Amino acid sequence: MHNFSATYTDQYQLAMAQVYFNKGHRDHKAVFDYFFRKLPFKGGYAVFAGLEELLGIIQELRFEERDLLFLQEQGFKKDFLKYLHNFQFRGNIRSVKEGDIVFPTRPVLQVEANIIEAQIIETLLLNHLNFQTLIASKASRIRLVAGDSKLLDFGLRRAQATGGYFASRAAIIGGFDGTSNVIAARDYDIPVSGTMAHSFIQSYDDELKAFRDFAESRPENCVLLVDTYNTLKSGIPNAIKVAKEMEERGQKLLAVRLDSGDLSYFAKESRRMLDEAGLDYVKIAASNQLDEYVIKSLLEQQAPIDVFGVGTNLVTGAPDAALDGVYKLSWSGGEPRIKISESIVKVTLPHKKQVFRIKDSNGKCIGADAVALENEERVEEMFHPFEPYKSLQLGQFEQEPLLHPVMEGGEVLHEKRSLEEIAAYSLKRLSELPIEFKRFNNPHIYKIGISEKLREERDKLIRHYKNT
Amino acid sequence: MHNFSATYTDQYQLAMAQVYFNKGHRDHKAVFDYFFRKLPFKGGYAVFAGLEELLGIIQELRFEERDLLFLQEQGFKKDFLKYLHNFQFRGNIRSVKEGDIVFPTRPVLQVEANIIEAQIIETLLLNHLNFQTLIASKASRIRLVAGDSKLLDFGLRRAQATGGYFASRAAIIGGFDGTSNVIAARDYDIPVSGTMAHSFIQSYDDELKAFRDFAESRPENCVLLVDTYNTLKSGIPNAIKVAKEMEERGQKLLAVRLDSGDLSYFAKESRRMLDEAGLDYVKIAASNQLDEYVIKSLLEQQAPIDVFGVGTNLVTGAPDAALDGVYKLSWSGGEPRIKISESIVKVTLPHKKQVFRIKDSNGKCIGADAVALENEERVEEMFHPFEPYKSLQLGQFEQEPLLHPVMEGGEVLHEKRSLEEIAAYSLKRLSELPIEFKRFNNPHIYKIGISEKLREERDKLIRHYKNT
Repeated sequence: MHNFSATYTDQYQLAMAQVYFNKGHRDHKAVFDYFFRKLPFKGGYAVFAGLEELLGIIQELRFEERDLLFLQEQGFKKDFLKYLHNFQFRGNIRSVKEGDIVFPTRPVLQVEANIIEAQIIETLLLNHLNFQTLIASKASRIRLVAGDSKLLDFGLRRAQATGGYFASRAAIIGGFDGTSNVIAARDYDIPVSGTMAHSFIQSYDDELKAFRDFAESRPENCVLLVDTYNTLKSGIPNAIKVAKEMEERGQKLLAVRLDSGDLSYFAKESRRMLDEAGLDYVKIAASNQLDEYVIKSLLEQQAPIDVFGVGTNLVTGAPDAALDGVYKLSWSGGEPRIKISESIVKVTLPHKKQVFRIKDSNGKCIGADAVALENEERVEEMFHPFEPYKSLQLGQFEQEPLLHPVMEGGEVLHEKRSLEEIAAYSLKRLSELPIEFKRFNNPHIYKIGISEKLREERDKLIRHYKNT
Repeated sequence: MHNFSATYTDQYQLAMAQVYFNKGHRDHKAVFDYFFRKLPFKGGYAVFAGLEELLGIIQELRFEERDLLFLQEQGFKKDFLKYLHNFQFRGNIRSVKEGDIVFPTRPVLQVEANIIEAQIIETLLLNHLNFQTLIASKASRIRLVAGDSKLLDFGLRRAQATGGYFASRAAIIGGFDGTSNVIAARDYDIPVSGTMAHSFIQSYDDELKAFRDFAESRPENCVLLVDTYNTLKSGIPNAIKVAKEMEERGQKLLAVRLDSGDLSYFAKESRRMLDEAGLDYVKIAASNQLDEYVIKSLLEQQAPIDVFGVGTNLVTGAPDAALDGVYKLSWSGGEPRIKISESIVKVTLPHKKQVFRIKDSNGKCIGADAVALENEERVEEMFHPFEPYKSLQLGQFEQEPLLHPVMEGGEVLHEKRSLEEIAAYSLKRLSELPIEFKRFNNPHIYKIGISEKLREERDKLIRHYKNT
């Protein structure tokens, strides 16, 4: 449903590009790192999402005629506009695989391209990866507490406009089972679900007739919303009547849905009434301002809820609303580059790099990733990035390189996996992470270290800038 | 950049539509109210945004061939798909004008259409109005504290994916002056700005050369980013050198930009250094995690900042992330409809309605809107919706009806206003609101009352449902 043009960017990318163009830097090779500084939701990990879709968009990214007209009105010059007319991204991208678990301060993805192309895609890249990673991470937290319950995304109506479309995709990567969002289901091949709103019941003079009409018209996947008037006195008794009538027709009521009140109490009472009526196969679905904490509490109270519909808190990534991902220059014009800052933790890492995940002999993460120069094949000792005397010997561990080529010369290298495959991969990677990193309260901190060579290179550059 | 199809909706809208279609309700007229229950940001008002764009989308909304194929796969039947093939919204919409200030619990917009059409547009309508109203309200709060300073939206990179496109539009309605978002600027005719990132400076061996190249290539609107290495020892002195060189060429440096550190301290020191160099015309721009509270504090400290760039907190509407707008049935099948709830404040108002803004003889709001039946021309006494003995005499006041026809038979009635016009209208309406409703801490609560006739109608329906 989207038509991205290369003007899906910040104006300063074009302003800088104009200068690079005028000053003969247009063929300067640049390397940018994408990473984030802070885990969302005070959690112990994030789920990387948005990559495969982003690569497809980047491959097709062009300036349209109306873009060039607009830019001309903004004062951009003819020769530069002609260059933009022929613009396409022809660079290389190496990245962590979509669905993998990722951690702060180390590269998740690296772009290598001429500096103009690398700058023009920056905003689009940040916009997509920041958001989908945020939502996949939120979904993953909800999946962790929900166990085997079914999880459905109900968020579109309160989503941040069309951001909801991408949220539905990311939710699946994080472990959701389906969505109410029809256009996202159509485009991403996501299982879609939805039955009735309160307005449906209200539009009838009585609830029983509304349930009957619905069950007759849509006997497959029939879910009845039972809280419009009075859940236990009217909604459940009417649902039981209709379920019995369906049985006579050889059909089965799939579920009832609760959307208000004390969900734990109403789920238990509803379950009891359904079971007493011999309807133990009818499931209970619940919605209404759910998030990972509410679901955890409901399940701790042993509320017999089989399906959770999660809306606003999922698709907006509440309470965080944004992942703080950044895109920092680490190489250009044949030289390693660094961003100095008053705050040592904000100093960036120069050079093209590789990241290794450190694992024990059972393939379980020990809780550390090591960042090295691109040509290093292993890291024997990893150093704390800022505390000079802290280090960890890694000689005995397996080391899995995480950055893989995903785009070369502007061409996507691998076929898109289905969302199902990405979600399955994510689940597998999450299973390799010890439980201490998954708890909600003060999760164990995943270590990020740097190799000795990278540390030397970085410190050399810091000294250089301190002395000038 | 968007192509909306009628599948931009929740699946349950289509499930209900199928039942209405099968059961002969397809021509039942229905009326739905759009309203929200809680003001965002603990504020005293909200700015209504998104309407004129939404109407254009609704007028063109259709099911595409691939939508129908997808729905067929989901089990929807042939005759119903044929109906959807010919679907277009042919109903009427009455609404508050876009840009007006709005308050909780009373109708902001009313849809009257056959029940299938009214349901199918629900999700799209909520998705757009909830989000743009949230962002315009956030922007308005920032404008209130920023006085005459220039306000720029820098949010796209951390926006909720393509939600950022609509956020840039809504920000202008709330009082922003421009955006960095090129594609939004192109489509909505918003002033666009942007100069350089830290990467630009880093890509050079020294900052002065980077500034020089930039000023030579883009002397118009030249803004230099001064905090890459050391703001006061390097950035500002280099900017001063370049500004002097520009003067020799008959050009003027527009501004310097601060993006880190203590913005109040650095702005004051930078101002002093620029002034001492005779560059009192060079403005100071600031960015970095700004919101209304930070800007208020900076200006209270008399930080000499002329331009604020606001990103994440603006475009995600942090910390709220969503407006809780709902769409409730108030009429169908020839009868008024009501949603009963355990909680009296959640009981809806039946019937087609009008809303009056109560004003004194100077055109100033007294702080109350009265909701009446559609055919009432004035409200002489307005009643508290839930407390039976509270009422207010309105005989002596001006009463301005707020709901105006904006769509009839599916056709938009008025030409789209420019964003500038909508923003100017919003500013005018906000000026009619007393200052007590605009303060950040415990703003005065705007009263919403109902007419005697509406109260009688509502109570009659409540009694009816209590007795059945």
